[in-house]
Amino acid sequence: MHTSNSPRIQELQKLIRSQKLDALLVTSPSDWYYLTGFTGESGVLIADRRSLALVTDGRFTVQANEEVRGASVVEHKDGLYRTCGELLKKRQTKVVGFDANVLTIAQSQILKKAAGKATRFQPAAGLVQNLRTRKDSVELAQMRKAARLASEVMESAITMLKPGIREFEIAAEIEYQMRKRGASGAAFESIVAFGARAALPHARPTAKRLRKNELVVLDLGAILGQYCSDITRTVYVGKAPPKIRLWYQAVLEAQSAAINAIRPGETCEMVDAAARSVLATYRLEQHFVHSTGHGLGLEVHEEPRLAKNQKTQLATGNVVTVEPGVYFAGVGGIRIEDDVAVHQSGSEILTRASRDFTEI
Amino acid sequence: MHTSNSPRIQELQKLIRSQKLDALLVTSPSDWYYLTGFTGESGVLIADRRSLALVTDGRFTVQANEEVRGASVVEHKDGLYRTCGELLKKRQTKVVGFDANVLTIAQSQILKKAAGKATRFQPAAGLVQNLRTRKDSVELAQMRKAARLASEVMESAITMLKPGIREFEIAAEIEYQMRKRGASGAAFESIVAFGARAALPHARPTAKRLRKNELVVLDLGAILGQYCSDITRTVYVGKAPPKIRLWYQAVLEAQSAAINAIRPGETCEMVDAAARSVLATYRLEQHFVHSTGHGLGLEVHEEPRLAKNQKTQLATGNVVTVEPGVYFAGVGGIRIEDDVAVHQSGSEILTRASRDFTEI
Repeated sequence: MHTSNSPRIQELQKLIRSQKLDALLVTSPSDWYYLTGFTGESGVLIADRRSLALVTDGRFTVQANEEVRGASVVEHKDGLYRTCGELLKKRQTKVVGFDANVLTIAQSQILKKAAGKATRFQPAAGLVQNLRTRKDSVELAQMRKAARLASEVMESAITMLKPGIREFEIAAEIEYQMRKRGASGAAFESIVAFGARAALPHARPTAKRLRKNELVVLDLGAILGQYCSDITRTVYVGKAPPKIRLWYQAVLEAQSAAINAIRPGETCEMVDAAARSVLATYRLEQHFVHSTGHGLGLEVHEEPRLAKNQKTQLATGNVVTVEPGVYFAGVGGIRIEDDVAVHQSGSEILTRASRDFTEI
Repeated sequence: MHTSNSPRIQELQKLIRSQKLDALLVTSPSDWYYLTGFTGESGVLIADRRSLALVTDGRFTVQANEEVRGASVVEHKDGLYRTCGELLKKRQTKVVGFDANVLTIAQSQILKKAAGKATRFQPAAGLVQNLRTRKDSVELAQMRKAARLASEVMESAITMLKPGIREFEIAAEIEYQMRKRGASGAAFESIVAFGARAALPHARPTAKRLRKNELVVLDLGAILGQYCSDITRTVYVGKAPPKIRLWYQAVLEAQSAAINAIRPGETCEMVDAAARSVLATYRLEQHFVHSTGHGLGLEVHEEPRLAKNQKTQLATGNVVTVEPGVYFAGVGGIRIEDDVAVHQSGSEILTRASRDFTEI
């Protein structure tokens, strides 16, 4: 069944024509899943104006034949990009778009050699990614489930926090709880950071034991039915000093300001600025060392990015994380993160766990 | 402390000189961990003939300053590759090696523009990867631990197999057991495939329940102290028909033949051929749809590859998986995989779980 009758494929073919391309090389697994349902990790989907062909290898052909809708499956024997080039040559495809952010120098050389001189390659980044930023109702329903699952796991992980437990024990429990609830896995390596380790925005779980009077940052996400969630909570073990309460208050206000700024037509940089300006009123802006958030969907980091200099306007169907944080080397950090969908009427927070300051 | 005094860095600088490069862009996280100890996920390590500089962003600088040995840490503000290019320009570096298999077309364009005309870029793939193929005694000790951990988890997972249990429950338990034993996580998404799903070499765990008279393929690996392990076992639930016993026997013989062929100086293709020719005597060669194995270390797939047309000779310190398998669409599959280190005197099997045919 090679007919390209899905609305997503039709949208893509419209884009291919409007960009004056004859075909597009789809080189990201999330992109080809979005278009065809193929969950394999190796391949190239060649989308032309009439049909789609998924080129993959022997490890994935049984699976591809089961999963793929709207594309033919081609098994390559001696080189993925060589086979793609040969296919383009055989079909006399003239102008082929590719993603310069994904295609490596070496792949490009093999491809061009096999395709021959009659085929021209033209950078065309993000066509499918752009389609993917606007989730349809089926996708939003799936993302709600993934976000709810992550929220439940967060609440369950917080109940496990007691002095003496190790970071990796919490991480193990988090992943176990995700799987038990049907997730295919974690969307990223869970962050479980105690005390001064919470000052590292991307801390990996270690054997460190939890002690009294420490901050704990938990950042986790699940993949459920291919869609990702991403949630962060920060709690304090013991009775928090006023300074920490104030920092928490600042981050929570910054997050709320950013969430309130979310609506169709607002630029991403303005949402980022909303969080940043709250932190500035607390003189904490220099401790906020990353951006406010990122798109979320089949991948855990997608477009649009809520960051400085991002002029992109939010649109209905976007799903973004909102996750301001402040970090103090040697002391710890505080980050609060939720997943937010953009609707015509404003926004919807998909994650559910309490954001109240919690002392345990 | 920017002095480049580690033996690994010295080896690399020798290679840089012998390749007539002035500097090398190290663009893979495993490569920069190997050289400097940095476990962050974003950055570029610029290694020149005298010194090393790790360029990374604000999310990773605290961590980099803690972890990195033998390199200075540079925080970039507006673009990783732009900062690298500017640094090369400032240092008047003339010939810069890069990995064409990693650098994308877009990154290369930004880099070249920032570096200016006086800097020339030259493909130089795999220099650090090549060093990494020959594990030293510290690395081998770590890999033994990672392999033992995976073997224990395998044995524990097999005891959980009983009719009615779901694939993802086993997968959850596998990852939990890894974490409990100190692994930082799974080296790859565990494969838990029941019945006909075992015919997919890369099956992802689903909600499928185990039934009597099914094959079960379990393929798992742990990351322990940054090093990966990788093990596969296949068991039968019930009393196996003679055909399945014969297939198992064939795969086990193929694996043993390949392991026996492993010694320093033997080519990778000959090890692959050793497995393949055993399967040919059983007329099963066409059911062996992948290669015999791959290098293992900081990454789960490294050089050398035990596959057709691989003329590379094995050397002491190499660690490879040996994992022949046969697959029958609609029926199931059988794969047996162990991790093997190459020593002067032959080989050492790092994984420990029994390979006897098991009916449960």
